[in-house]
Amino acid sequence: MAMAQVRTVGLVGGGVIGAGWAARLVLNGIDVALFDPDPEVERRVGEVLEGAERAYRKLTLAPLERTGKITYTADLQAAVVEADYIQESAPEREPLKRSLLAEVSRACRSEVVIASSTSGLLPSRLQAEMEFPERFVIGHPFNPVYLLPLVEICGGQHTSEEARRQAAAFYRTIGMHPLLLRREIDGFVADRLLEALWREALHLINDDVATTDEIDQAIAYGPGLRWAFMGSFLIYRLAGGEAGMRHFMRQFGPALKLPWSKLEAPELTDELIEKIVGQSDEQAAGCSIREFERLRDDCLVAVLQGLRSQNYAAGTVLRAYEEKLYERSHPMIMSDADDLSQPLRLHAARVLPEWVDYNGHMTESRYLQVFGDSSDALFRYIGIDAEYHAAGLSYYTVETHIMHLREVAAEEPLHVTTQIQGCDDKRLHVFHALHRSCDQVLLATAEQMLLHVDTGAGRACPARPDVLARVQRLADAQAGLPRPDEAGRFVGQRRS
Amino acid sequence: MAMAQVRTVGLVGGGVIGAGWAARLVLNGIDVALFDPDPEVERRVGEVLEGAERAYRKLTLAPLERTGKITYTADLQAAVVEADYIQESAPEREPLKRSLLAEVSRACRSEVVIASSTSGLLPSRLQAEMEFPERFVIGHPFNPVYLLPLVEICGGQHTSEEARRQAAAFYRTIGMHPLLLRREIDGFVADRLLEALWREALHLINDDVATTDEIDQAIAYGPGLRWAFMGSFLIYRLAGGEAGMRHFMRQFGPALKLPWSKLEAPELTDELIEKIVGQSDEQAAGCSIREFERLRDDCLVAVLQGLRSQNYAAGTVLRAYEEKLYERSHPMIMSDADDLSQPLRLHAARVLPEWVDYNGHMTESRYLQVFGDSSDALFRYIGIDAEYHAAGLSYYTVETHIMHLREVAAEEPLHVTTQIQGCDDKRLHVFHALHRSCDQVLLATAEQMLLHVDTGAGRACPARPDVLARVQRLADAQAGLPRPDEAGRFVGQRRS
Repeated sequence: MAMAQVRTVGLVGGGVIGAGWAARLVLNGIDVALFDPDPEVERRVGEVLEGAERAYRKLTLAPLERTGKITYTADLQAAVVEADYIQESAPEREPLKRSLLAEVSRACRSEVVIASSTSGLLPSRLQAEMEFPERFVIGHPFNPVYLLPLVEICGGQHTSEEARRQAAAFYRTIGMHPLLLRREIDGFVADRLLEALWREALHLINDDVATTDEIDQAIAYGPGLRWAFMGSFLIYRLAGGEAGMRHFMRQFGPALKLPWSKLEAPELTDELIEKIVGQSDEQAAGCSIREFERLRDDCLVAVLQGLRSQNYAAGTVLRAYEEKLYERSHPMIMSDADDLSQPLRLHAARVLPEWVDYNGHMTESRYLQVFGDSSDALFRYIGIDAEYHAAGLSYYTVETHIMHLREVAAEEPLHVTTQIQGCDDKRLHVFHALHRSCDQVLLATAEQMLLHVDTGAGRACPARPDVLARVQRLADAQAGLPRPDEAGRFVGQRRS
Repeated sequence: MAMAQVRTVGLVGGGVIGAGWAARLVLNGIDVALFDPDPEVERRVGEVLEGAERAYRKLTLAPLERTGKITYTADLQAAVVEADYIQESAPEREPLKRSLLAEVSRACRSEVVIASSTSGLLPSRLQAEMEFPERFVIGHPFNPVYLLPLVEICGGQHTSEEARRQAAAFYRTIGMHPLLLRREIDGFVADRLLEALWREALHLINDDVATTDEIDQAIAYGPGLRWAFMGSFLIYRLAGGEAGMRHFMRQFGPALKLPWSKLEAPELTDELIEKIVGQSDEQAAGCSIREFERLRDDCLVAVLQGLRSQNYAAGTVLRAYEEKLYERSHPMIMSDADDLSQPLRLHAARVLPEWVDYNGHMTESRYLQVFGDSSDALFRYIGIDAEYHAAGLSYYTVETHIMHLREVAAEEPLHVTTQIQGCDDKRLHVFHALHRSCDQVLLATAEQMLLHVDTGAGRACPARPDVLARVQRLADAQAGLPRPDEAGRFVGQRRS
């Protein structure tokens, strides 16, 4: 039974999970026929789809498939009769699911795979009354279904290997990560782990040890940040330090006897330790602890930076920390004692690995980022702060000319020197030069015209007198400097 | 007992956790005196510090403190006698910790806070033999200590509120998120949750249900991605959909009786449900489910994008998914049938919220990103692909002139048209115009000179004949187009 391309999926149930499936499917160009007797289903699914579309627009700039079509029906047969794949997401009640799945199996084509989203009911029991039960699998997703890649695939006693294979192949085409389970067990794998943590959390609430918010903080500001990319086994392997998993198991073995959870651990026999160490070694596949530590740290940095952009949870902590660092280092406003006669050195940066493009050099937009940060440093230096911006005043860039003189590689330390080319009460003409700090080599230049604007009115206006005075003092002090070779040029002009 | 600024911290124990503390402290400008009898400690801590420095350079561009100094000693007294704060991270054995802490308390100044990094031993027991036990707290961090913000603070029966307050204030100054626990309990809060999940995982291994790698996948590709910023209570509140926490508790309540974990849940009494619902409402603080869903999705997108940059775990899934989307949509190479007489429309984008700066408009570097992406689309169009780059051939930008004509706001749909201004066998002179797609308004322009290079030799060379032929065909077809007003200008030139 080879599966043809899936063009239409029949969805049984349009709750939070069913709506999430609908969103993932249509955003991947697949049509959906959704059965749900609730008269509100169309509105609810529509809202989830709106959220999912918004998320996908942010997630990727890759060109998405033309969005699939959703049809709603209160007739179960109509939803599944034409479907190329069926996904059931009814409420978590075994008798209800069993009878729905049996009915579906009689109404749909005999070769179509039928999957259930159940979080933990046993597939052998769910498939018991189906026709052609060999094509039934568990396809257990995680909320929000349209963003989280994991889907657990689990067969029952009648399930064919071919059905598991087809389900995995289909989920991969819609951007998911199928995990094929070895055998069926209540709660499968992920929900057993979730459930153990959840039950322990309920005990903590019940015993008045912590509140829901405190428990959530205990996850999201610490261990949860690691779980975003590494599971507990790899994390603990690293916690063992150079001695690795065997050391960790021996060192923390006794803690398994301590009352650190209401759940009794299995007896930590030599056999169990050897099994874990062997599997962990295989999982690590010859990658050293130091390499994993770097990978872990890089992923943590990426996650923390992502959350900083959202200013949420650990991202809020990082943002506040950085603000403090900047505050302390930036009483960087012009003082009477400053020597202004040479180009100013106001900004330094380092080329982050993610700034590098397919040529192995710094992406061109990052040059303008560094130059823009240099202009921001200049603004702070001439007395422009958050309050100034809040008053509706700002310098905008209206024109930029960049010369790329030498390639810039990852991790290189950079600094920018800034020379004033001219000014009046509204205009500020600057020339930034980007240098490699270790050997002072000139890498690139940017000549910019900045215009002072009333941001509310959206038109040019003079800068505040104290700012203008600093600009003028700087321009006067640098008036004698020669014009750089790279200034005053148009694109394609021959070099003199 | 007001705590003076902490300049030196005495560390007792230099294992994985102690070394992590040393790294966080010195990177925050604090000197460290480290007691550890292991002759290898200096090398091991040095390696952790090297990794931490690397991570911090990536984490933030904010100017870090001058790095503190580490001194190593095998004499416990010497490590703590001058310290302004003491952190013990000895092996997890109660008698050892008790005697070390007692000795520390006699050797250090009487007003100094002494913290233990223990994962779960009870503070009342650890402080039993100390002098001035009121200044003893648990300060439980998470590995890697230099990156993860969470630190659990827990007092014993003799601990003063002032010591807890001082510890929290100190940890905040070094970028951490203190969680002050209400009362002592074995394992505190975070490790009880971790331990329940871990013991369940050990059972799964013991019972041959899954391997260490499969269990890790079940976390990192699904629920772990959410835990990076939201704990289980908030996550399940959202899983309840519009009906919220009460609905979730009622709907999934029966599952607490199912054998989905070896841990028995507490009895889900009405009282417990009300307690959870009340605390969850308070935690949500009037924020609607829809608002939380958007926040969750934005954070997930940020985390997934961060992991994509590392090409690890869920980031690998996203990257493969995008490659497939690009592949399918880009047989976008020039064909004989194409009309080349007008500027080409090869690239579209949408202004993401994170592209917007403090002025509320698109940051200037993002303009160059959009123009760079347009050049990349042009390259694909003239037949340049990954193979071409792998052969050591590429066009580099050598010069760019940008005109900003109108402000660009978040979520605006953009497209770029590209006109060839000239070419020879090595040079390609292009003019990109950025338009708002909804009303065709011209927003900005970029004129660029691109140079074809042999990337291995690092010097200019002619493009491959088939690429050159397409470039020439395009240049010929557009030769009759008028030169745009914004082309051929130098910065500050008066507009005609």
